[in-house]
Order: sequence, then structure tokens, then C-alpha cells
Amino acid sequence: MQQSRTQSTFVSPIVESSNWIRGRDFPAEQPLLNLSQAAPTDPPPAALRDAMASAALQDDSVHLYGAVLGRSELRDALAVQTCVHYDADVTSNEIGITSGCNQAFAATIASLCGEGDEVILPTPWYFNHKMYLDMAGVKTIPLPVGAQMMPSVTEAATKITSRTRAIVLITPNNPCGVEYPEGLLKAFYDLAVAHNLVLIVDETYRDFDSRTGAPHQLFSEPNWQKHFVQLYSFSKAYRLTGHRVGAIIAGQDRLAEIEKFLDTMTICPNQLGQVAAHWGIKHLQDWLAGERDEILRRRQAIADGFGQIAQKGWKLLGLGAYFAYVEHPYTQSSTVLARQFVEQSSLLMLPGTMFCPADDPAGARQFRIAFANADSAGIAQLFDRIAAFTPEK
Amino acid sequence: MQQSRTQSTFVSPIVESSNWIRGRDFPAEQPLLNLSQAAPTDPPPAALRDAMASAALQDDSVHLYGAVLGRSELRDALAVQTCVHYDADVTSNEIGITSGCNQAFAATIASLCGEGDEVILPTPWYFNHKMYLDMAGVKTIPLPVGAQMMPSVTEAATKITSRTRAIVLITPNNPCGVEYPEGLLKAFYDLAVAHNLVLIVDETYRDFDSRTGAPHQLFSEPNWQKHFVQLYSFSKAYRLTGHRVGAIIAGQDRLAEIEKFLDTMTICPNQLGQVAAHWGIKHLQDWLAGERDEILRRRQAIADGFGQIAQKGWKLLGLGAYFAYVEHPYTQSSTVLARQFVEQSSLLMLPGTMFCPADDPAGARQFRIAFANADSAGIAQLFDRIAAFTPEK
Repeated sequence: MQQSRTQSTFVSPIVESSNWIRGRDFPAEQPLLNLSQAAPTDPPPAALRDAMASAALQDDSVHLYGAVLGRSELRDALAVQTCVHYDADVTSNEIGITSGCNQAFAATIASLCGEGDEVILPTPWYFNHKMYLDMAGVKTIPLPVGAQMMPSVTEAATKITSRTRAIVLITPNNPCGVEYPEGLLKAFYDLAVAHNLVLIVDETYRDFDSRTGAPHQLFSEPNWQKHFVQLYSFSKAYRLTGHRVGAIIAGQDRLAEIEKFLDTMTICPNQLGQVAAHWGIKHLQDWLAGERDEILRRRQAIADGFGQIAQKGWKLLGLGAYFAYVEHPYTQSSTVLARQFVEQSSLLMLPGTMFCPADDPAGARQFRIAFANADSAGIAQLFDRIAAFTPEK
Repeated sequence: MQQSRTQSTFVSPIVESSNWIRGRDFPAEQPLLNLSQAAPTDPPPAALRDAMASAALQDDSVHLYGAVLGRSELRDALAVQTCVHYDADVTSNEIGITSGCNQAFAATIASLCGEGDEVILPTPWYFNHKMYLDMAGVKTIPLPVGAQMMPSVTEAATKITSRTRAIVLITPNNPCGVEYPEGLLKAFYDLAVAHNLVLIVDETYRDFDSRTGAPHQLFSEPNWQKHFVQLYSFSKAYRLTGHRVGAIIAGQDRLAEIEKFLDTMTICPNQLGQVAAHWGIKHLQDWLAGERDEILRRRQAIADGFGQIAQKGWKLLGLGAYFAYVEHPYTQSSTVLARQFVEQSSLLMLPGTMFCPADDPAGARQFRIAFANADSAGIAQLFDRIAAFTPEK
């Protein structure tokens, strides 16, 4: 009997690593420092919570089925925000709201690929992208990034076959943290156009980019709708991870295909989450600017403090958004070391093996550190614990 | 270039039929009577809305990522409710919470099937089941129901091949309304055991069954976890359609597979919907009994009033839960007639063709009437308008 869809992929690294710490007691003098997941750990601002509570009490529509592609006021607001941010002309009917950004990815892939088609993913990859491609029967073609953690467009070109349907980029990148230059995105877009592919750019961490202004001009390309899809998440910007709200910006024809998938999977995105995202767009832009400043301060603290472990042979490979991507100096695999860090250092970081193909030796040397949840004291602890760590024989 | 996943299926009937009425003006003396979708049109009780508002304001956890398989208090509560209702011993770790019952179906199929595998669906089917099977690369094997709208276990047996992985039943049925007898479910379960298949029973409309007591004893079968999966929805019971909360009851091993799919698709079910479902289980059982009584009254009104159109040649094929499934007396296809009912009668019912394979002539003679949203005045209107209808030449 052949494998089922789920048997064709691996256990989610987030689930697997949460099992490493479940039910475990950590010493009071060294409490758990969990830098595994890229997620705010604080709730959203009180005013947003008030807005959700008011909607629950007063707006009947939040309790009823809504449009598959989302509430019109949220689609309108994201369209306007996109026009402003990217200096482009994107319309509401080019916006689809999803039950989080993972679903946005899945729905986009379902609209593009059938069994045995191929999608190019830079490695290290975001593991949920790989998992969905596995479950969709799509062959993932790894594109190892270069020394600067940037994918090469010339190398990508060599990997395109008659079965290639899409190239997926994430910027700012998960897990590497790097921000892709505008020119790199344009070069990948041109590659997609030349080979009649679609370039999917996941901009979940867009609001924490250290650069100001539009990160690219792809929405201004003629007929961008044929070759470009942007994915976005409201979860990080407004601390709405518990509410599952993401978005797809794509051509109307593609959204009509995507709508079939979303209807069949969840019927509509949950309404209160959409109300919250809409409220966030309208009222939290100054607050979000402060959030970004704080993340950038933490990023700087990582850069400034890294010398403490660089002395021990650690290397900082990439840094940005919520993530530091690092290389360790030990002979053991990061898979083994990750468990030892939990036991010895009360520190949870995901090993690079969770972001790389099994046959890629790079992952065994690497860790992703989701530093965004650590304040300056936490970041100091991080370096102290890594510096004090001794691998077991 | 082969079809993509979404291109391999059709446009959602709910989306398609909503386009028939969008932007259309209906006469004041004959407003739209929309009996297309099985969904409450009123919000949940005020006390549940209060509970959601309180959670939004006071419970930080509702704004943050939660467990992939759902909040433990909801899993616990549904386990207890299941034990009581089915006189069985189901545990919390056999419960998975999903982003609605459509996702519950998709995740279960993904855990069972790979490309080219087969699943047996009685026809008329629930179209979202068919759509997901198409998108999952799974071949749907139609099992036309007999005169009583009941599937035949002996006929099902003839359709089993080496690629068959599951049989899907819905009781009370969507679209036919009929309640499957306990003996029928047991016979299908035995068939599944005999052929090493899984019987998936979607009990979305369980709370509106006209019978009292457990509808089956399948949770008491030895090792039911190997051959039985139950799907459930909180949406209908507590009027939570806008919040997307469903459930899967299955063996732990299967839930571990399903967890991969859910993690990749939506990471976790939205938290406030889960809070609402949990509150509903704890506090709305008497209220739900009243809801059920009202649905049963409406069902009786359909049965009582049907004579008015039976005179014109209409037949009542099935009745129960939210649905009447009917046969019309005209030569034209229900696909054509459905549009004429919108134009002439301001009445939206889904044609049987939306629930049947294209090569099955039955659908062209049939309509599904989702009567649950119509009060007694609405049901009187329904019959008056059908009686007054004249098909166009």
C-alpha cells in the first residue's frame, strides 16, 4: 500500500521540539529559554482586544459564515496599504484573506501544481513549505543558498525543468533572517517570466524589515498578476497568532482558483480575526513602528553580543526579522546538540537539520535562533548559556 | 501542462449560487428566500457572546498560538460529551480540534490516501467532500443511494478495490436529510473491518437528529480506532459558523498523522472559536435542546405542507436535519430551473446536479432545500412559490 499524503512528510519541527520540553522541569536558577518559534508571546494591545470584544458583542456578522476570500473591508484596507507601501496599484479583488499564512501558501501551490510538478525552494527552507509540498505530491527542488544566505538566480535557472511551476522566496527570510535586495527579487521575477513560472514571495516578516520603503517594485511590473504572488500574515504585525489571519495578493483569475481550495478547506477565514486585522491596519501603525524598533534593537543586541560566542567558534550566518541563523563549532550534528542544549542549558533552538534536506550536510552545522521573543536580558542569557555549553561525548 | 489541484475540481456550489443573487434586486413583495446553505442566520446567544468578549479581554492565551490539535479543555469536554452521548470510552487524546468540519474531512483523507487511491461516497454527495477528493488526487467512487436515500452495503462491497481506503457516510445526511439506522452504520463498519478500510462518519448534524440516544455504538467496537473516524462540527449546534471550529475523533496514531496536516495548513484552530465551543458544551445544552425542537418543528412543517406541491408532481425524497431533498416534475434540468426559481420566485435552492456526478441523471431531477433557516412563514412561502412556479420554455 502506498504512503498516504501525511505519511509522505515528516512530523512538524514545532510539534517535535515541543515534545522535548513537555512535562520537563527546568531549574529555577536557569528557566527555559524557548527560542524555537517565531511568534509574539504577548497579547495584542488592549485597544485591539476591546475592538474584538465589541465586535463579538455587537456585530452579528462575526458569528456567521462570510465570504470565502474574506471580509470586504479587510480586503479593501490591505489593498490600500499595499498600494501605499509598494507604490503600486493593487485592487481589493486581487486580495484574498486566508486562515493564516501557511494556508495562503498551500492554497497558492494547489492553484499552480498537480502531482509530480516541481517547486524550487532555497535551502535552508521553511519546514511547513516543504511539508505541504510533500503532502501535495509536489517535488521540492532545493536551491542551497550561498555564503551570504542569498539564493542565486543563475543557479536557480539550472534547476528549472518542464515540470517546474513556481519558485518560492521568503523575505525577510525564515529561517536565515536575511533581507533580499530589490535587485535579487527582480532577477527572480524576470526568471519566472522567462520560463512562464510564478514567483511566490512570502513576506510574513515584512513589517520588521530593517530597510524603509518598498522592498521591491514587483507590483508595478506589467501583468504582474501572471507571474507574481505575494503572501502576507497579520499574525506578527498585530500579535494575532491565535486568530489565524493571512493574505494572498494575486491576479483575480488565480484567486478564483484559490477560492475553490479555501472553500473546501475552511469555508471562510474566521471573522473575529479579520475584524482584528482590519482594526490593526487602521489604528496600530504607530504602535507597529514601535514594535519594529524593538525588534531592530534586539537584532542589534544579537549582533553586538555575538562576539562572546564567536570566540568559541560560532558564526553568525544571517540576521534579521525574528531570526539569527548560526553555525556551531562542534563535530556532533545540531539534531543531537539541540537536545543537549535543552538538558544542559534550558535552551530550545531548532537545529538546522529541520530546515534542510536530509542529504544536505549544512543543516547539521546550523541552528535557527528565533530571538524576537527574548528581551535584552534574555539575549544576554542566550549568549551566556551558549558560551557555557559543553557538548556531551 | 497538466491540471493543477484546483483545476481538477469545480467551483464551489455555494460560491456559484451566491453569484446568481449578488447585486440583484428582488421585489419588495417577494423578497429573496435563500435556502441554499445549511447555516444558522442568527448569532449565538448573548451569554456566549459575553463569554467570547471576556476571553478576548482577559485571557491572553486566546491571542497566541495554541496546540495544533486544539485547546485541552475543549478536547476534554468533547471527550466527556462523546462518552455520555455514545455510552463509550473515548479519551481526550482521541480528539483533535480543527478549523471547521471541512478541514476535519480533508485532514482525515490526507492521513489515509495518496495519489490515485479511492474513496467511496454515497451520491448525492456533499460537494465539498467531492471537491477535496479531487484536489487530493483521490478517485471518488460514487455509490448511488436507493429509494429510501440509503446507501446499500452490498452495493458498496462491489465497489471496493485494492485502492479503496475509506467509505464516507454523513448522518443525518447532507444533502438528503435522512438519518441512517444504527444497523446500517454497523454493517458499513463491518464492511470496513473486513476490507481493512476506514469508515468516516460525518456527524455535523448530529444535534438535530430526530431520534434520541446514541445514533450508533461504533465507539464501543473493539479497536474502533483502526477502522472508524467521526467528524463533528460545533458550528451548527452553537451558531458558530463564523468561528470555524470542528473536530475529529480518531485513534491516537491517526491523529498524529492528521496533526502534520493541520500544522501545515493552519498551525492551530483559532482560539476564540474554541473558547466559544467549550462554553457551549458547558452551558448551552438546554438551549440546544430548544434549537433542536425548533428544527424538528420546521421539519414537521415541511412534511405537513408538502402536499401542496405533491399535487403538482413534486416528491419528497428525504427529510431531516437541515434538509429536504426533493424531486421536481419538470423536463428541464434542475441546473436550469434553479436560475429560473431565482428570477421568477426569488427562491434560491441548490440543484441536485451540484450533489451528483455529471453522468448521473438523478441530479437533474432534484433539489436540496436547506429549510432550517426558514420559519413557519418562510416555509409557507416556500410552498406557495414552488406551487406558483412555471418553468420557462
